[in-house]
Amino acid sequence: MNQRSISTDTIAKPYLLFLGDVKDDLSAKTSRGIYEWRPEICVGQHRLPGCETALELPELSYREAAERGAKTVIVGVANAGGILSPNWISDLLEALEAGLDLASGLHMRLSDVPELRKRAQELGRKLHDIRHPPGELPVGTGRKRSGKRLLTVGTDCSIGKMYTSLALEKEMKERGMKVDFRATGQTGIFVAGSGICVDAVVADFIAGAAELLSPANDEDHWDIIEGQGSLMHPSFAGVSLGLLHGAQADALVMCHQPGRSEMRGLKGRPLPHLQDCIDANIRAGRLTNPEIRCIGISLNTKKMERQAALDEIRRVEDEFGLPCVDPAVTGVSSIVDRLASL
Amino acid sequence: MNQRSISTDTIAKPYLLFLGDVKDDLSAKTSRGIYEWRPEICVGQHRLPGCETALELPELSYREAAERGAKTVIVGVANAGGILSPNWISDLLEALEAGLDLASGLHMRLSDVPELRKRAQELGRKLHDIRHPPGELPVGTGRKRSGKRLLTVGTDCSIGKMYTSLALEKEMKERGMKVDFRATGQTGIFVAGSGICVDAVVADFIAGAAELLSPANDEDHWDIIEGQGSLMHPSFAGVSLGLLHGAQADALVMCHQPGRSEMRGLKGRPLPHLQDCIDANIRAGRLTNPEIRCIGISLNTKKMERQAALDEIRRVEDEFGLPCVDPAVTGVSSIVDRLASL
Repeated sequence: MNQRSISTDTIAKPYLLFLGDVKDDLSAKTSRGIYEWRPEICVGQHRLPGCETALELPELSYREAAERGAKTVIVGVANAGGILSPNWISDLLEALEAGLDLASGLHMRLSDVPELRKRAQELGRKLHDIRHPPGELPVGTGRKRSGKRLLTVGTDCSIGKMYTSLALEKEMKERGMKVDFRATGQTGIFVAGSGICVDAVVADFIAGAAELLSPANDEDHWDIIEGQGSLMHPSFAGVSLGLLHGAQADALVMCHQPGRSEMRGLKGRPLPHLQDCIDANIRAGRLTNPEIRCIGISLNTKKMERQAALDEIRRVEDEFGLPCVDPAVTGVSSIVDRLASL
Repeated sequence: MNQRSISTDTIAKPYLLFLGDVKDDLSAKTSRGIYEWRPEICVGQHRLPGCETALELPELSYREAAERGAKTVIVGVANAGGILSPNWISDLLEALEAGLDLASGLHMRLSDVPELRKRAQELGRKLHDIRHPPGELPVGTGRKRSGKRLLTVGTDCSIGKMYTSLALEKEMKERGMKVDFRATGQTGIFVAGSGICVDAVVADFIAGAAELLSPANDEDHWDIIEGQGSLMHPSFAGVSLGLLHGAQADALVMCHQPGRSEMRGLKGRPLPHLQDCIDANIRAGRLTNPEIRCIGISLNTKKMERQAALDEIRRVEDEFGLPCVDPAVTGVSSIVDRLASL
């Protein structure tokens, strides 16, 4: 019973991952993320001469990909300046000819390239520019809507919020619960096939975008909303706060990486204490949902030895009296148990 | 010693205020604000047939305005949909011919109108689209910079933050202090001649915009930064938080309107308590400036009887132990006294 539909189009699956001629793994981070999370929606990769990175996927021409069922080419790479270089454009035109839609996370829009726009229109193909949210976003209202919402928050950026959200959705689906993952960032949107890049919306509409993304729903339905940034990150806290207010979260899961020495992009600034970060999110979140609570902690222990990781998970669980997990190590069932009891 | 200059152009003064053919006072709110705050920079108004509102300014043609020294026509009006109607465009072309620049606060850009762009280029006139911040905003760093900063914050939107900021700047200038008003909204930008509409920047860059707007300066220099929204407003708190973090405020002045029954645009939602709102701003502001403090309260008592207003100002001053003013009633000298002692 969605009362408002999300105004972003759905990206048709499965995908062919376009790597262009990028020189390093970092530039292919988004493509790698999609492949790691949803190998089943990736039929292959498409690289141009000079590309120096690769995924563990078959190398396919557009024609071959279409024959294997691919519907959309994902331009999930970062070029210097977020630019579509001319040799990419001529190549991507062939994708349209082969019957594929295009989806890009670059700052430069596919639809701003006249050749691509014209040919897509002629052939009835879709161009998705996911870093450019729909123009007609509403202003947030703060009004309570039906259904339940969980938001992943973090002590820093890039700390496991999407990972945790997807793990929660998977576990809940397996238990037969009503649940939807709501993507707020580039990789998440490609994985889910829809969503809104909240860090790319105009500042006045952050909370409104979050409301639109997780509309009124059945009372026993959960939206698992992918958090962004951190309320304690001096560069991006505004995004995190707007998202928290718009989400009207019933439940938070706090994500953290033990041992990370400084906040992302901020030399010498230590991460906030877990308790301070939980408190700040709860206090701020009460503005639009007085019932908000933190129901679990998700640790990213990939850089730790297994036993040390398990010890740390146990220690945090005892210290905070909350289920603590690393989705990749323990699974997330203890958090879902807690959530199911709300 | 500005280490980074503000990347928005300065709008040349004085102004001719363009009212177009708007039908009501509310649509001319920005023009009225400019005129009320800086009558000395307004040489006249320019209205089209059908206009049903007016300011207390001489009605001038573009030629007459140029002769009286006007440099820029301010399109400080709101049309349905933020559109430049065709009859406005042909009229504004005459302004360019008469030697005037154009500045607009509409969502639709002057520079997106081919006729205007072409003619301005040919004639060497500037087009300022102040609701479209420069594309190259930086991400906030949270790094401490030299100089001092005061940010006006509020219990709600449209409650007196710009008014209070301008009053503080005026009083400080009169005392010979080093001070600059830093505009963050439409009217403020026209008044100051420069600034950044922070609610119009892409969400990731709110804090960065605030840093850019109030760059490193002399140690005894104060930036008086115009606040936006409210940390307690469910629609816009993200903007307010990014601005607070980027401002790295040494001092806050809390703005409030006694007796306002509900938050702007949010039916039935009462305003937050003053103390809660001060506490929330101080807690959040500490992230980028641990020395932040609230140094005064500014009440907007325009809807109160004079004696009741004075009583309320005294009562709040006693309750909070902070200088309390209404800039329009008491002036702001008690706050500037406190600030000068920091």
